[in-house]
Amino acid sequence: MAKKSPLAPSRFPVFPPIDGVRLAAGACGLRYEGRSDLMVAELAKNTRIAGVFTQSLTAAAPIDWCRRALKGGRVRAIVVNSGNANAFTGRVGDAAVRDTVRAAAAGFKCPQNQIFVSSTGVIGEPLPVDRLVKALPCLQNRLDGGAWRAAANAIMTTDTFAKGATRTATIDGVPVTINGIAKGSGMIAPDMATMLAYIFTDASIDEVALQLALAAATKKSFNAITVDSDTSTSDTVLLCATGRAKHKRITNIADAHLRDFRKKLAGVMIDLAQQIVRDGEGASKFITVAVTGAASARAAKRIALAIANSPLVKTAVAGEDANWGRIVMAVGKAGEKADRDRLEIKIGGIVVAEDGLRRPGYDEAPVARHMKGQNIDIAADVGIGRGRATVWTCDLTHGYIDINADYRT
Amino acid sequence: MAKKSPLAPSRFPVFPPIDGVRLAAGACGLRYEGRSDLMVAELAKNTRIAGVFTQSLTAAAPIDWCRRALKGGRVRAIVVNSGNANAFTGRVGDAAVRDTVRAAAAGFKCPQNQIFVSSTGVIGEPLPVDRLVKALPCLQNRLDGGAWRAAANAIMTTDTFAKGATRTATIDGVPVTINGIAKGSGMIAPDMATMLAYIFTDASIDEVALQLALAAATKKSFNAITVDSDTSTSDTVLLCATGRAKHKRITNIADAHLRDFRKKLAGVMIDLAQQIVRDGEGASKFITVAVTGAASARAAKRIALAIANSPLVKTAVAGEDANWGRIVMAVGKAGEKADRDRLEIKIGGIVVAEDGLRRPGYDEAPVARHMKGQNIDIAADVGIGRGRATVWTCDLTHGYIDINADYRT
Repeated sequence: MAKKSPLAPSRFPVFPPIDGVRLAAGACGLRYEGRSDLMVAELAKNTRIAGVFTQSLTAAAPIDWCRRALKGGRVRAIVVNSGNANAFTGRVGDAAVRDTVRAAAAGFKCPQNQIFVSSTGVIGEPLPVDRLVKALPCLQNRLDGGAWRAAANAIMTTDTFAKGATRTATIDGVPVTINGIAKGSGMIAPDMATMLAYIFTDASIDEVALQLALAAATKKSFNAITVDSDTSTSDTVLLCATGRAKHKRITNIADAHLRDFRKKLAGVMIDLAQQIVRDGEGASKFITVAVTGAASARAAKRIALAIANSPLVKTAVAGEDANWGRIVMAVGKAGEKADRDRLEIKIGGIVVAEDGLRRPGYDEAPVARHMKGQNIDIAADVGIGRGRATVWTCDLTHGYIDINADYRT
Repeated sequence: MAKKSPLAPSRFPVFPPIDGVRLAAGACGLRYEGRSDLMVAELAKNTRIAGVFTQSLTAAAPIDWCRRALKGGRVRAIVVNSGNANAFTGRVGDAAVRDTVRAAAAGFKCPQNQIFVSSTGVIGEPLPVDRLVKALPCLQNRLDGGAWRAAANAIMTTDTFAKGATRTATIDGVPVTINGIAKGSGMIAPDMATMLAYIFTDASIDEVALQLALAAATKKSFNAITVDSDTSTSDTVLLCATGRAKHKRITNIADAHLRDFRKKLAGVMIDLAQQIVRDGEGASKFITVAVTGAASARAAKRIALAIANSPLVKTAVAGEDANWGRIVMAVGKAGEKADRDRLEIKIGGIVVAEDGLRRPGYDEAPVARHMKGQNIDIAADVGIGRGRATVWTCDLTHGYIDINADYRT
């Protein structure tokens, strides 16, 4: 495995258990020798589920299954393997999903549409599903309410550290827990990576409200990060609510009692999303791009992503070069309304350009110092309206080329 | 200057003179020591002009000027400097353009709107326009019908070779010449690069037909290349027709006599566009991406650009890795209709995947041999309709990072 990212958090957080959630992880030998590659999460009966998936039109077989199963709104188990993405595998791939679902549904004695599956790893290779199915009963025997870190480890591919985040929220005076694990390193590298996240809570929330809460939080978390602008065939975020907490069931997204939960849910998801960026392939700097003054929030996000995805901006940051001209260029190419002569650019909180010009008397020294740090802040005010958005990315380094221009000979 | 690109053509072509076109180049000391940085092209009176410009919303001052001047449809001189882009320079930038135009119009004794200007180089620095204006009369004295290569040299920034292409076409039985020069290295690096092209012909074509011909040819040439998906603040293509050839003036784009000219014009422009890709920053491979079977030509182009801009596809090519899974991923992320289970991928003309699966009995050896060459062919048939498009790009290498992550300390 590659060396741990220099941007990794110091440690995996301590997770409180969640009533109704048990996990297990193990090795079924899909690809990696002696490394765990299978994770099972068991949910209490009647657990509600919400999900968001890749927008890719060449989505993998498990995505097709999850989209259909989600209509039932209930989950009894989630089965995730690493090492093989079961993507671009045609009918054989669909059959592998069916075999996994059938085996898990028998094991957990539940309808098939309460089984959710994800696969991540190499694409275009048939999944050796018999090995996976054979390992399932053994994992089922070892389910444990505390196996969070083992679960986070089992879903890793090119990740250099396991990713987890936890928060406590209050619903109608009752504390509830939100635990999430994720994997991803590079927005995607279909060989070996993809973005997956599984979030669990004991809150009691109906599936429609749960889905709306998840979709809203996804916008400002997993959909606000980019490593290389590439999109996986397998990206999946699932949110499971066991309903074991003792508050009154929430059925409406507009319920004021849901406010703190939604805030904390976004907190867990932003934390996980930022950890994925911090494990970006070859990353040496964590970059926050904040855009203000755009025509709308949507316009602000497109501009922020244009900056965050620009190879020229990303290589400049890698080179610790406060190259604000490239930021101006990226604003221009986003295709959203901007006023060149009102544009303001800040780096590390310091105004470098304003009113369409380099700031008179601009002193590069403090900006150059900021560029030497690990956390780089870029802000652009486009001078048009009140739309704002923040996205996170990492720099583009020789490490990215090393990882992805893999000389296979 | 950097080492010449390994993908450079063996030599600059021999250009026939064009009646009504004279050029001169020289050094006015804008940025580079002892290197020519100013080019002037003089056109005979009544020369028609057409132009296409960057879509950037933070376009440079010269772009604003050219867009306005183009309404007159006539050109007497083009003045291009390298070393300074006069971009994001506010009112000072507009004044520099006006000073240049005023001086050139006086020198060539023509209305100001017959003077076209471009600037390429560092952005955000005021252009030392007095040096440029002072050098103009001296260049005007040295105008020469054969100075094509000198002109191509003077507009270079990070380019590693001068770019030119020439063709002869026939209009109504009369031979006409089309000569073009261009610069660009990286779709753009606003520090030092941008895409500029100037095309000259003795054909006699009215400005409206000329503009339509240029726009159509741009689609399949300069708008079908990408190095790093970044868009310059200064991209400019100008086409000048002196009208000195002895055929009947063409006034209608649909005129059948224009057919061969349009074909040859596209030939010159595709040649120049491919040379820009061959000089792409850090390029070691020239990649052709052909998409067929899409819902429309527009959809095909979006899919082709998604493949050509994918950092994962580009790094795989750099690594000589026939990683077709990344091509599938890029097709999926383009957002255009595609049928996963009908998708066919060819590399070097060899089918590697079809009907949504790796081809049964796929032998990697011949594909691996193709990947070791300098010219890489990627083809994707998305199995939906009849839309097709071809784009050209280069690989993403350590060289790109070296050039752009410039440690300024």
